[in-house]
Amino acid sequence: MAELPEGTVVFGVFNETSEHESRVALTPDIVARLRKSGVTALIEHGAGAASDYTDADYEAAGAQVTDAATILGQADALGFVDRPSDDLIARMKPGTWVIGMLGSFTDADYVERLAKAGLTAVAIERLPRQLSAAQSMDEMTSQNSVMGYKAALVAANAYGSFLPMMTTAAGTIRPAKVLVLGAGIAGLQAIGTAKRLGAVVTAYDVRPASKDEVESLGAKFLDLGLDFSKGQGEGGYARALTAEEQAQQQAAVDEKAAGFDIIITTAKVPGRKPPMLLTARGVEGLHRGAVIVDCAASDLGGNVEGSEVGTHVTDGGVTVIGAPYLASEVSTTASNLLSRNVADILVHFIKDGALVVDPADEIDAAMVVAGAPTASKGE
Amino acid sequence: MAELPEGTVVFGVFNETSEHESRVALTPDIVARLRKSGVTALIEHGAGAASDYTDADYEAAGAQVTDAATILGQADALGFVDRPSDDLIARMKPGTWVIGMLGSFTDADYVERLAKAGLTAVAIERLPRQLSAAQSMDEMTSQNSVMGYKAALVAANAYGSFLPMMTTAAGTIRPAKVLVLGAGIAGLQAIGTAKRLGAVVTAYDVRPASKDEVESLGAKFLDLGLDFSKGQGEGGYARALTAEEQAQQQAAVDEKAAGFDIIITTAKVPGRKPPMLLTARGVEGLHRGAVIVDCAASDLGGNVEGSEVGTHVTDGGVTVIGAPYLASEVSTTASNLLSRNVADILVHFIKDGALVVDPADEIDAAMVVAGAPTASKGE
Repeated sequence: MAELPEGTVVFGVFNETSEHESRVALTPDIVARLRKSGVTALIEHGAGAASDYTDADYEAAGAQVTDAATILGQADALGFVDRPSDDLIARMKPGTWVIGMLGSFTDADYVERLAKAGLTAVAIERLPRQLSAAQSMDEMTSQNSVMGYKAALVAANAYGSFLPMMTTAAGTIRPAKVLVLGAGIAGLQAIGTAKRLGAVVTAYDVRPASKDEVESLGAKFLDLGLDFSKGQGEGGYARALTAEEQAQQQAAVDEKAAGFDIIITTAKVPGRKPPMLLTARGVEGLHRGAVIVDCAASDLGGNVEGSEVGTHVTDGGVTVIGAPYLASEVSTTASNLLSRNVADILVHFIKDGALVVDPADEIDAAMVVAGAPTASKGE
Repeated sequence: MAELPEGTVVFGVFNETSEHESRVALTPDIVARLRKSGVTALIEHGAGAASDYTDADYEAAGAQVTDAATILGQADALGFVDRPSDDLIARMKPGTWVIGMLGSFTDADYVERLAKAGLTAVAIERLPRQLSAAQSMDEMTSQNSVMGYKAALVAANAYGSFLPMMTTAAGTIRPAKVLVLGAGIAGLQAIGTAKRLGAVVTAYDVRPASKDEVESLGAKFLDLGLDFSKGQGEGGYARALTAEEQAQQQAAVDEKAAGFDIIITTAKVPGRKPPMLLTARGVEGLHRGAVIVDCAASDLGGNVEGSEVGTHVTDGGVTVIGAPYLASEVSTTASNLLSRNVADILVHFIKDGALVVDPADEIDAAMVVAGAPTASKGE
């Protein structure tokens, strides 16, 4: 392997391909972009394969394709789609930077282990998304955008009729009625995609601001006849509703849901139990052949009561798809967007050819959770 | 069971659900429509289940839900998505009408067996589609329309990137380039659906008339630099090309194909070996991550060399989906459209409350292949 030029930051990325993960934290076009910022990229053999990027693509872009041990030995910073395992952490040399979705809001022990290993940990989930300087680093936005697009496609593909209105010599098929619950980035993208396909789209979100966003896409905002104002939570995420509000919301949504053919729920709150947006009663009210795609399905539950990861059909003939890995299923583009975000985070921390935490920088203060005096300790 | 009113035509439909068939030849709304034409409908238990129509739906519409033996005993006419098995034919009473896709162009023996059983056979594949009176009976058009819609959805769902252009804070993702080979009903619907999803769509067909149709949908017509004029075959289907033309076409298409992300082939010719539109060399030229959906994949081969029913990924990373059952996968709507077509064919043959073949009628002369003096004997 060629000697690395002195003074450059070495950035390493591993093969994270697992049953549910097809993405990679660095794509070839970003390798070239990083070189211009003085970053040398090391990538593990086969890391891009599941995203349709070959080792040859990486080499052509100027990355060194190598094994995990070499990356661990040489890299100043490591980028992850998810976060490194404890085994991998144990093999990292002190002083290495770790950039990933670290789960720091809910797993303080993990952050503690990163700190004890002498690592500098940059938690992407803590990005201050409202800052304009942070927008190109916003992996949550880019991946949720992919998720919303894919959710609409998965729903359309599972539905036994057309999304658009179709006029044929034998008669007219009415367009599908789609309800999107949760109108964040993913929800807005699902709305846009379902509308592209010709569906009649309605959406709902507890944040009052979302009404304008939904309507600006040409969709209807679902009128529940209830007021959950002051719903906007910190960092742009939906706040958790009170128990009473949830009950009111659920009853109203359950009732209104019966008129729809497809329901897409997108209210994921990072690392927390997702809010329930449709109860078993709501699911029961849907007609045979209706399709639900629950993007928040997880071991912690989903937005839809009884949803599980995977597809099942209820006794009432409703297809419920619990789909927490949708961004990963559009792996080429999801990886590319994610890679741009991670690279911009990396470059943000490079000053004069070295990785530096600036305690006065709002982004640094928010994201560096281990290895620097300014690290934030939990929420 | 209630006594059937005298003078009505009794129409029976069976449960054809099999591994690849989710459609049903009669849907509940058409039951009601048929009643107005003096037709009593009998439907086998569970026949609509795979299309999300319940026995209760049929009963509510006025059909009698019963068993196959009762249908065979009472029905004057039987409607099929496909065609009846020899076992079922053996159980039919002489004089029964059979309406379905009988495969009469390629299976004269089968038609002979229908005739020997004393049945009157109406071959939907022989519908003179060019007649305006035949348009509401045109099952090929309605089912190919569903197929084309679904082909675009399946392709979009299998593709690892976006179909639409997406502009994000981290950069812009270019729209997918889609090539549709075969611009009949299915191809035009695939073009329309891919365009709805935001792809940049190009199409090709050997029929010169298809250029205007393609361009009227806002897609580009692929310029091969070749002239296959006089390509329009009988009945609106693409004619088979000469060997030399095929070789020229294949070489040109193979070469042009390399620039596309998604290729959808729709050139099905009923009952015949489908024309090859993309050779193994063309498939090899595609980039890693490209997706092919071959709607003509079958035991006789498909439009794409080496395509098989199901999904496989080539060594070059191209996903090839052989998908001959796409209409059946959109079973609710496909059944509904098919049911309208079959019902209109049935009603066409009813004169004064009885099923009658009119030798002077162009539709009758074309479609009745057994059981009537005007029956056409093979091609």
